[in-house]
Amino acid sequence: MQPSQVQIHNVTSQVLRGNFLGDPHVRRMGVYLPPGYDARARFPVVYLLAGFTGRGTMMLNESAWDENIQQRLDRLIETRAVQPLIVVLPDCFTRYGGSQYINSVGTGRYMDFLIDELVPWVDATFRTIPARERRAVAGKSSGGFGALTLGMHHPETFGAVACHSGDMHFDLCYRQDFNGFLRGIKSFGGVENFLATFRDIRPKKGDWHAILSTVGYASCYSPNVESAWGFDLPFDVETGEWNDGVWARWKTWDPIELIPQYESALRSFQLLYLDCGTRDEFNLQFGARTFCARLKRAEIPYRHEEFDDGHFDISYRYDVSLGAISAAWSA
Amino acid sequence: MQPSQVQIHNVTSQVLRGNFLGDPHVRRMGVYLPPGYDARARFPVVYLLAGFTGRGTMMLNESAWDENIQQRLDRLIETRAVQPLIVVLPDCFTRYGGSQYINSVGTGRYMDFLIDELVPWVDATFRTIPARERRAVAGKSSGGFGALTLGMHHPETFGAVACHSGDMHFDLCYRQDFNGFLRGIKSFGGVENFLATFRDIRPKKGDWHAILSTVGYASCYSPNVESAWGFDLPFDVETGEWNDGVWARWKTWDPIELIPQYESALRSFQLLYLDCGTRDEFNLQFGARTFCARLKRAEIPYRHEEFDDGHFDISYRYDVSLGAISAAWSA
Amino acid sequence: MQPSQVQIHNVTSQVLRGNFLGDPHVRRMGVYLPPGYDARARFPVVYLLAGFTGRGTMMLNESAWDENIQQRLDRLIETRAVQPLIVVLPDCFTRYGGSQYINSVGTGRYMDFLIDELVPWVDATFRTIPARERRAVAGKSSGGFGALTLGMHHPETFGAVACHSGDMHFDLCYRQDFNGFLRGIKSFGGVENFLATFRDIRPKKGDWHAILSTVGYASCYSPNVESAWGFDLPFDVETGEWNDGVWARWKTWDPIELIPQYESALRSFQLLYLDCGTRDEFNLQFGARTFCARLKRAEIPYRHEEFDDGHFDISYRYDVSLGAISAAWSA
Amino acid sequence: MQPSQVQIHNVTSQVLRGNFLGDPHVRRMGVYLPPGYDARARFPVVYLLAGFTGRGTMMLNESAWDENIQQRLDRLIETRAVQPLIVVLPDCFTRYGGSQYINSVGTGRYMDFLIDELVPWVDATFRTIPARERRAVAGKSSGGFGALTLGMHHPETFGAVACHSGDMHFDLCYRQDFNGFLRGIKSFGGVENFLATFRDIRPKKGDWHAILSTVGYASCYSPNVESAWGFDLPFDVETGEWNDGVWARWKTWDPIELIPQYESALRSFQLLYLDCGTRDEFNLQFGARTFCARLKRAEIPYRHEEFDDGHFDISYRYDVSLGAISAAWSA
Repeated sequence: MQPSQVQIHNVTSQVLRGNFLGDPHVRRMGVYLPPGYDARARFPVVYLLAGFTGRGTMMLNESAWDENIQQRLDRLIETRAVQPLIVVLPDCFTRYGGSQYINSVGTGRYMDFLIDELVPWVDATFRTIPARERRAVAGKSSGGFGALTLGMHHPETFGAVACHSGDMHFDLCYRQDFNGFLRGIKSFGGVENFLATFRDIRPKKGDWHAILSTVGYASCYSPNVESAWGFDLPFDVETGEWNDGVWARWKTWDPIELIPQYESALRSFQLLYLDCGTRDEFNLQFGARTFCARLKRAEIPYRHEEFDDGHFDISYRYDVSLGAISAAWSA
Repeated sequence: MQPSQVQIHNVTSQVLRGNFLGDPHVRRMGVYLPPGYDARARFPVVYLLAGFTGRGTMMLNESAWDENIQQRLDRLIETRAVQPLIVVLPDCFTRYGGSQYINSVGTGRYMDFLIDELVPWVDATFRTIPARERRAVAGKSSGGFGALTLGMHHPETFGAVACHSGDMHFDLCYRQDFNGFLRGIKSFGGVENFLATFRDIRPKKGDWHAILSTVGYASCYSPNVESAWGFDLPFDVETGEWNDGVWARWKTWDPIELIPQYESALRSFQLLYLDCGTRDEFNLQFGARTFCARLKRAEIPYRHEEFDDGHFDISYRYDVSLGAISAAWSA
Repeated sequence: MQPSQVQIHNVTSQVLRGNFLGDPHVRRMGVYLPPGYDARARFPVVYLLAGFTGRGTMMLNESAWDENIQQRLDRLIETRAVQPLIVVLPDCFTRYGGSQYINSVGTGRYMDFLIDELVPWVDATFRTIPARERRAVAGKSSGGFGALTLGMHHPETFGAVACHSGDMHFDLCYRQDFNGFLRGIKSFGGVENFLATFRDIRPKKGDWHAILSTVGYASCYSPNVESAWGFDLPFDVETGEWNDGVWARWKTWDPIELIPQYESALRSFQLLYLDCGTRDEFNLQFGARTFCARLKRAEIPYRHEEFDDGHFDISYRYDVSLGAISAAWSA
Repeated sequence: MQPSQVQIHNVTSQVLRGNFLGDPHVRRMGVYLPPGYDARARFPVVYLLAGFTGRGTMMLNESAWDENIQQRLDRLIETRAVQPLIVVLPDCFTRYGGSQYINSVGTGRYMDFLIDELVPWVDATFRTIPARERRAVAGKSSGGFGALTLGMHHPETFGAVACHSGDMHFDLCYRQDFNGFLRGIKSFGGVENFLATFRDIRPKKGDWHAILSTVGYASCYSPNVESAWGFDLPFDVETGEWNDGVWARWKTWDPIELIPQYESALRSFQLLYLDCGTRDEFNLQFGARTFCARLKRAEIPYRHEEFDDGHFDISYRYDVSLGAISAAWSA
């Protein structure tokens, strides 16, 4: 049988044209086509979303001790743990590390890009089964947040969701970065200077990550295109004084707060999978537990897993989620 | 001239008798009497409050590279940086590390002990100038919080306040400990087991401190004597779900929120001194900046210093605050 | 002009067949061919060696903030900072993370593979200038060690050497890992258990790296194919007792000790470039300084650079070394 | 019965007069006299040696969670775990943090001070049993090294030795500090500037400790009173080049190397006790294991304990060692 292929396609977006950060509107998309693709009619599709500072094609990177996504999928399909499927690896990177897969005037309309442009393009270009019942969205970290958020907003597009160590309970996962931001920003010469030079700062250590993450999330959750930086922060950079109004804008995206609002979407999924490591460096295990406790109270079905592990090098969990998605499709 | 003396006295409290945590109601108090004490009529007094996990007499400990409080005071008086004064070193330690110098049903009535029992005892026992204009309160970390809080509640007792790296802006300084609590509590067998065994756990590292601090502060700020632990936590120990009601109880003690309520007290001080390190490990520099910014808006006089330093080994700053108190007395 | 290409070739080695660790003897090699490759006769070649736990093709990985090697070379050639050249990306990975590019009965004959098989294959397959004057070897970390070591052993093959943050002064760079090994090995169930399970241990943190590195280097420097593990360690795993004999075997590979032995090779290079970060996490800046101080005493020409940086994310320095190699070829 | 007393005496040394570092030759000694001291004829004595940066009287410091030495001894005697005894708390501090309790031209003749001056003074001043069979020496960290070293050199003075987490296997315990020294010394402006300013540097963090320790040990083990600094270092400060000659001087004090030389002393003890934590931050557990393994091979009796703990806050182990000493005296 013909082996699997990975194709890299440039996809041109209309909605990303002229985006606020000046990021490209032509994006490189990776597409995994399963062994025997040419021999069969149509396949279900998983959209696999990279984490913050990641692009989809980076899942094709080689590493020392782990499979890349092609090797993983080949094995899963060969061992029949997962049925043959197409996997799409989108690029929603921004200047500041990521779009969280949402629409923001401070970054671009990445949710619209995915739903209105990429999914139709995939269905037009590859032999997909173009139905929500055979289209899933999955990801880890910010990609896990993205999978859950896309699913909640667009249940007509996605029938299954897998969220690995996804951003949620923002008070627990993001605020610790704010401390690093406050402590460190002066050593980088202030916000404006950081924004101008962050790519060239070496080594990229310690507070650099906390500051960049805060900038990236703020550009998504609390953009302010009239302001000097393009976003508002939920705290005063000098005194740390808290800004409830800005924080309230972030929280409109916090999954743990959104179950009532998206209850029918959440209830509609063939599979709603969440997991986290018990030692997650961003405290996301607590967010997942809270989210699932609230699903339970609302009697919404879900699957929740915990692993004795941290936040990084966790793609082995795709074995679990992709297996569960595949099983849900077969049910 | 007769050299300085340090006396250790056992002081019996009525208000601490039968306190909730079973801590002693007889307390060892250190009292510094300046050189020439016996030769002069009366002296002003500073009450110097220890930080969390400290007792006043621990300021008499020897250390490798620094003066203890007696050596420091001797030098400051000898060089006329500070006028001869009495310094009282109270013990408000509790089973969980500290009372924050406030009244709590979950610990004891430590504020009342200080104001209603200790100050009168000191004035009755030593040749003090028994007037708020010659009575100051100072401290660092939780002792800085205590100094500020005692001053705000009892301006009739204290005419000057010095707060070194004091607890404030609780969202910034305490929440990071909650993350450590959540991550670590399981490894200690849960809260009940931690409460039963924490003194014997070795080594006392990492999350141990975060958990103990959280327990200690909760016993002060959100006691619940009907509950299994004696206090409520502002989060669910399993899921991290936030409890706004409990957190609101903590915040009633956050100095940055209390300026309007205690405005006349704050305005009444001969000296209101705050400082912090620019690299404070608990982010307290931001609390001090916020507090001072709000004082400024309210046109309340204060003195604010920052040092290029962290949170520990900072008693060298007593040179500054005691000098300022002494100058205020002489003004 | 035709753009640059990267080709991936499977190269079959005879000398690696049946190697002790059971690693593959067919290896994937990346080869960068410059823009306009087809239009010109012949090109000089750089062999670029990956660090410990790396393979050459991993330099083609995408990353968030940096170019991969193809993007870097394209830019350097386009801006004429570097003349058009072929870059070979060898794979000398082993079960334990790397071969150090040397021959070892405990891993395989990787130096012979490179010199006797790969270089001839490259010269036979691509339009190279097959002369030491147009053949350089470069790399970072263990690849920097490899570049220097290959150059010293085989000056007839390589005319220029660039060593970025290369392993040397083993007392300083390796011994700190031994401490981590000693402290951590019990938590992994001992050496045998670690060797059997290290790939599956999650998360791969802290002492895991120290232990794996020690294992990897021991398999190269002090193999013992008669022993249970396949290598000797320079210390007793239980007591830490030092084994001078084993350590002496390691030191026969320490570049700082080898200048007298390889003096004529070292003197023969068109370029001998070394650099390091001033904050190298493995103390390699001191090794480089020692090596260069000894070169200087021996009046052997070299170029030595230091960067205000650590050990990681340092491929930006290829701009410097490749530029210097290119200039040396043009001289 | 009359309670225990702690007396602080100034002891004047002749051998420390005019010592190289200009440290005082009059020293404050703490002496613990047991309950009922005045009622009984004579008592055995333990000399208890503080660690690096410690003085004996610092063992009288109060701490939050632990007894000080007086409280500990009172409890041990009251519960009959230990027989009534005198405990002497010597001060052998130096400008650089400690003398290691040895004679050095670079610090002072601290071993002679202890053996020839302090012990006779104690026997003349207090109602001791002035015999080696009732005189023990104990300590932790550098004090553990001191106890073992004093015992080995002066078995005529001490009949029992207890070494808690004592410095030994210098390659493992000291070299890791050298890395910190090399990395950090530039940020302190070089060695001369560090020596001139180290007491005032704030905060005293990270490499500060590594550098000070290295300086302190070098002043003891490799003094050079003709040199600019007063000591030689076993490495070049700029390049890290190793100096075998200097290191050999250090090693003449490494206990693991000295068993043959002091075999008869070691064999003569009523008790030779060693312990360490299994997670000692300075790798001293390996030194203790090596030392004991070599004692065993030499058929010298010893007692060796390990605790699941680190290097700090370990005075609870005095319960074990003092109990063992007391039992040895009763045997």
